[in-house]
This record gives sequence, C-alpha cells and structure tokens, in this order.
Amino acid sequence: MNRFSNNQLGRYPIYLKYFKELLAEGCEFVSSPRIAAKLGYSEEQVRKDLQAVSLEAGRPKKGRSVKQLVEDLESFLGYHDAASAVLIGCGHLGGALLNFPAFSEMGLEILAGFDANPDLIGKTVGGKMVFSIERLPELLPQLNADIAILTVPANHAQRVAELAVESGAKAIWNFAPVQLEVKDGIVVENVNLASSLAVLSHRLNVELAKGGK
Amino acid sequence: MNRFSNNQLGRYPIYLKYFKELLAEGCEFVSSPRIAAKLGYSEEQVRKDLQAVSLEAGRPKKGRSVKQLVEDLESFLGYHDAASAVLIGCGHLGGALLNFPAFSEMGLEILAGFDANPDLIGKTVGGKMVFSIERLPELLPQLNADIAILTVPANHAQRVAELAVESGAKAIWNFAPVQLEVKDGIVVENVNLASSLAVLSHRLNVELAKGGK
Repeated sequence: MNRFSNNQLGRYPIYLKYFKELLAEGCEFVSSPRIAAKLGYSEEQVRKDLQAVSLEAGRPKKGRSVKQLVEDLESFLGYHDAASAVLIGCGHLGGALLNFPAFSEMGLEILAGFDANPDLIGKTVGGKMVFSIERLPELLPQLNADIAILTVPANHAQRVAELAVESGAKAIWNFAPVQLEVKDGIVVENVNLASSLAVLSHRLNVELAKGGK
Repeated sequence: MNRFSNNQLGRYPIYLKYFKELLAEGCEFVSSPRIAAKLGYSEEQVRKDLQAVSLEAGRPKKGRSVKQLVEDLESFLGYHDAASAVLIGCGHLGGALLNFPAFSEMGLEILAGFDANPDLIGKTVGGKMVFSIERLPELLPQLNADIAILTVPANHAQRVAELAVESGAKAIWNFAPVQLEVKDGIVVENVNLASSLAVLSHRLNVELAKGGK
C-alpha cells in the first residue's frame, strides 16, 4: 500500500482535474498519448500511473472511459470520504485556507480554527469558528479530526505541532517554514513556499543568463 | 549552471533557516553529521549540497563556519538581490501572500497586485496597490517585474498566464491547480495544494491502516 512516490501521488489530482474538464466538454474517451501530450508526462508514465489506481484499461482506438477514470481517481484520492481537519493559526494564510472553497471537493473538511490571538477567538473565519489554542486537547478528540493544518509563525510551529500530536492529530499539513520533529507514525507533509521560491528564482536566473541579461 | 535538481534547490532555504537559528543561539560552527541529524538528510547529501554552493569546507573537529554558510546560501539564493514580482488575483489566497512579510527576506519584492474585481481595484492589500488586470501589459514593463504570481481561479489561470507572458513576465509562480502551457524559456513553478493534500491523505490512510483503524 506504500508503493506510491510523493511525485506520483501528486500527479493524481492533476489527472483528475483534466479528466473532469474533458467530461465537462462532453468527451467520453481519452487515450494515454493524448493525456501525456496535454499534461507533459511521458506515455509510459501515464500508463503506469493510471494502471496503479484504475482497472479501466481502455479499448484499442477508443481509449479509456473518462467517467470511469474520474470515479476511480476520486475513490483512490478519498474525495468521496472526507477527512476531518482543524486549522491552527488563523492569520492571513490560515484565513485564506479557511476561505478556500475547493478543499471540500478534495475530500478535506476543515471543522474549526484555533488561534492564540484574543481578537480572533470566538469569531468565525470562512464560516468556521475560531477557538483558543488552549482548548485544542479538549476539542480535537471531540471533533474526531485526524489532520492538523499548521499555519502558525515559524517560531511557534514545533511547539504547536507537539500540542496537536498530544491532542490526537495523526497528520500535520505544515505551512510553516520549519522541519518539524514528530514521533514515528505521525504523517507530516510540508508546503514550503521558501523552497518553491528558491526553485523558481534559480531557474529564472538560468533563463535570464541564457538571454544574456 | 542548470545542474541543481528541484529537490536540492528546495533544501537550501531549509539549511539557511537552520543556520540562522544556530547563529541566533550563538553557535559559530556546525558539522555535517549534526546538520544531517537535525534536518533528517544523510551526511553525504548534506556534504554534497553544501559543497555545491559554498567553499566553506570546515575544519576537522570544529566544523563549518555558520556565518560563512549563511552568507553563501543567501548569496546563492539571491536573497541580497531582490527579484521583482506582481501578484495577479487578490482574493483570499492572493491577499494572504500580499500580506506575507517573509517574502522580502527571501529576496522577493511584490510591487503591485492585479485583479478583475472592481471592488478591489484602486484599494491597497498588504500595502500594495491593486490595479485592473487590463493594465498589466502597460504596467508590468514599467515595474520591470520578471515574476508573475498567479492566484486566480483555475478556470482563468491559462488565459491570465498568457497575458502575463505577453506583458513580459519571464517566470510564473502558479498557485492555481492547473498545468499551464507556456512557451519555451518561460519558467513555471507550481504550488499545488491538491497534490500536497493527496500525498498527505494517502500517507495518513497507510498509517491508519497499520494501526488497524
């Protein structure tokens, strides 16, 4: 069950998005070469990726059923079966995520926000109630949330992650630019904007140097 | 110059953050094994990564100069030499990024926002003026911005990316869950929350299955 690489897992939502667009355009069948050309992957990669999550092998000349692929991908990604999360740190970035309508389509239900700022506690952000961070140990088990989304400042992240794990979180979606240390069996997935920006800047500088600028 | 993988580039801001913490703690020297243990990389990887961007090889028993490493990393990452960007799509996520104080430390200066929503045009968000998207072709060259940050809805992303490139953008930092098609020589770096969430959910399900839940 653990045979998927992060890169491969990360491609499935991109396939799904494309297949849904095809459905919306009334397109019923799609071939691996067409998928490969559209998404910029190799044909072999497309075949391997889809084979791993769908029995829909397609018919010669016709291609695979788009509807079946959408169903299989949504099922694989757990989009039918929402995971529950809380969000800790309801500042600018946290507030943006609380207001993000697409998460529920992706099978993520954010049930509540937590913050240390008295100005935010008791208010709603994106329709979610914001509670004091001190109530996390009491409320996380009640909410039965497995996932803690961390959008706190870097210098608070480790401490808050520990509190979330002690309160029962099984997975941390970490937006703070910090390498968290957690015990074995706790899943940490990082969204590191600094790392992404480093990749962008370096590749931009390579291109600018090519252009003689 | 193009010999860095994205994974490797993405690690440099994480090294830098750690070295700055060490400096703040008054720690002058650090060894590769210590770095490796702290960040969860192999010692060999740490040595290769740092060798590629810094001549600071360190002294036996003492380790590398933290101050020198910070300088070399900041220089490599271009943090002393800010890149200029505009942000297109000043909704929740875009607004959060405009309010993000850490970007200027990372060498990214967001000069202005653009949006199609008349309620936002002419206002400031995070201290940045929001202009009509129609003025992008006129203003992007005036601002001399190489980078367009895309935080527009998925169904607008391709069209807006094309407009940004036509207006002179050399790189696109894309937060929309879409594979953009751009001409050769234009850098695209994606921050795909759906992909990150897919990785998290899958690994969480693997862990929950192990626990017999």
